[in-house]
Amino acid sequence: MSQKNMQVLLANRPTGWVKESDFEVVETDLPQAGDGQILVKNLYLSLDPYMRGRMNDTKSYSAKAELGQVMLGGTVGEVVESHNPKFQPGDNVVGNLGWQQYGVSSGAGMAKVDPKLVPLSAYLGVVGMPGVTAYIGLLDLGQPKPGETVVVSAASGAVGSVVGQLAKLKGCRAVGLAGGAAKCEYVVQELGFDACIDYKAGQLYQDLKAATPDGVDVYFDNVGGEILDTVLSRMNPFSRLPLCGLISQYNETSPAPLKNVYAFLTNRIKLQGFIVSDHMERWPEALGQLGQWVAEGKIKYRETVTEGLENAPQAFIGLLKGENFGKQLVKLA
Amino acid sequence: MSQKNMQVLLANRPTGWVKESDFEVVETDLPQAGDGQILVKNLYLSLDPYMRGRMNDTKSYSAKAELGQVMLGGTVGEVVESHNPKFQPGDNVVGNLGWQQYGVSSGAGMAKVDPKLVPLSAYLGVVGMPGVTAYIGLLDLGQPKPGETVVVSAASGAVGSVVGQLAKLKGCRAVGLAGGAAKCEYVVQELGFDACIDYKAGQLYQDLKAATPDGVDVYFDNVGGEILDTVLSRMNPFSRLPLCGLISQYNETSPAPLKNVYAFLTNRIKLQGFIVSDHMERWPEALGQLGQWVAEGKIKYRETVTEGLENAPQAFIGLLKGENFGKQLVKLA
Repeated sequence: MSQKNMQVLLANRPTGWVKESDFEVVETDLPQAGDGQILVKNLYLSLDPYMRGRMNDTKSYSAKAELGQVMLGGTVGEVVESHNPKFQPGDNVVGNLGWQQYGVSSGAGMAKVDPKLVPLSAYLGVVGMPGVTAYIGLLDLGQPKPGETVVVSAASGAVGSVVGQLAKLKGCRAVGLAGGAAKCEYVVQELGFDACIDYKAGQLYQDLKAATPDGVDVYFDNVGGEILDTVLSRMNPFSRLPLCGLISQYNETSPAPLKNVYAFLTNRIKLQGFIVSDHMERWPEALGQLGQWVAEGKIKYRETVTEGLENAPQAFIGLLKGENFGKQLVKLA
Repeated sequence: MSQKNMQVLLANRPTGWVKESDFEVVETDLPQAGDGQILVKNLYLSLDPYMRGRMNDTKSYSAKAELGQVMLGGTVGEVVESHNPKFQPGDNVVGNLGWQQYGVSSGAGMAKVDPKLVPLSAYLGVVGMPGVTAYIGLLDLGQPKPGETVVVSAASGAVGSVVGQLAKLKGCRAVGLAGGAAKCEYVVQELGFDACIDYKAGQLYQDLKAATPDGVDVYFDNVGGEILDTVLSRMNPFSRLPLCGLISQYNETSPAPLKNVYAFLTNRIKLQGFIVSDHMERWPEALGQLGQWVAEGKIKYRETVTEGLENAPQAFIGLLKGENFGKQLVKLA
């Protein structure tokens, strides 16, 4: 076992686009597990768009990252030392140990996971927080009915890819929005969406109209901005709009205003901002279902795996630019 | 009985602000009630902001007014001739006979009302469509809990005045937004709101902040625009935003965009556009409750009554500018 730990700290609160210099990679001593604690060797770190909000010094729905402290984030790893009777060395655990190679925990918030059901990395994606986000946002808030049309942005991503596949399992027409022909081809050919629109192709409204001949009943939004405005113009009476993220706006110092406010009134649209951690009571069902569907091959997923914690800042910036393809992970060991 | 009818027709679809020339006042023959029909002498015509949308040639939630045809609208009147066994001459009825002195109906959509419970005009306001709008929007969609803060715009108007009084009956802090000191004084002194902010006073955010020390749990919006953006910045986590109208935008050729989109995500706000006619199953309870509370003096109301149908266009334009004080009616006879 290495006797050193590598960590990524928040070095600077970014204004606008995140830069690599906003992070600092440091080597520190291996943390010590005290009484009742476990020492975990992190194998994968999850990179997620919500982390951008935590870098700001503004009130947000989740604890902000502190300057000079380890960046917060989800991890899956292996217990290497345990002073807690609930965990044994060799156990695989998922939790939030942050951007570092090793972490110490009391065990609170750490869940044992089984690599025989799905690969360990999947517990940070399709059978983890992003999958549960899709499950709760689409099924609980979106309430899709068979035959309805579900549209999702960032459709090839960790959340969007699950949203569309869940929509298909529920008998809906699933239409994705993604950046570039390769992602769109994957969304349709591999994930089984009915259609996918390349928002970079320059004819967003026309393409969306063609792909949604019966309008839109559920729009699961991850991005905000112009795409949100455009989809609003296709939404049906009594449609639902679970608002999961505003990725297109996270690095803008002047966020784009929403033009199509009328649509909410005219079509009696229900918009609901949500955060998956508000719905912990729904996680067990969601994780159980997702795990089963992934094991059965009914839900597929794709990962972009960056090697080495020192490359996490660059990978994170790429994620915010949509350079990843599927769930963005960092392999730590 | 006069043997002539007066009607107000839609003469022109306005672009931007409505003008009197968009209407035409005409004298026509008295309509004849055929088999199964009733002839009604309208006593009051209701003027409501939603009528602006019906003047446009765009898809909306309600039937649009047709060029050269009688403007649509709610009326209360007296049956003067009946060939329908359900109605007798002398019955008072509320319905949608439009901007005219006399109307013929099959009886469908006409309800008999009792002037001994509340004055006839109230069936077009507090114990009518606007009152039910407040009831459903606040109680069903806003779901206010005792101790929460409810904010409503157009607070002295037909809908807003009921929203705030219902909020007080439910044990909430009620804060209104209205244009001018006189309206604000009425809202607090007469209607019993805890506070009212004059949005014309030039310090909307500061005044709102002072009036909502615990933030905003329910915002019942009638106006949209800058006021909506400002209230969004005060909304609490898990707050609700029933969107009833966008009066400030109805005559704008370039509606104001919404800047504060982040708030929906950060605070998990639920916005729900709604139209009272979608919820007909809730009308009987709402009308019964409102009628009782008005009769008991627990809910108060105020009317601006314009005399004469020929003055309806001018009164309607005034309504859209906020020149009315309370429910805007036209007295026809």
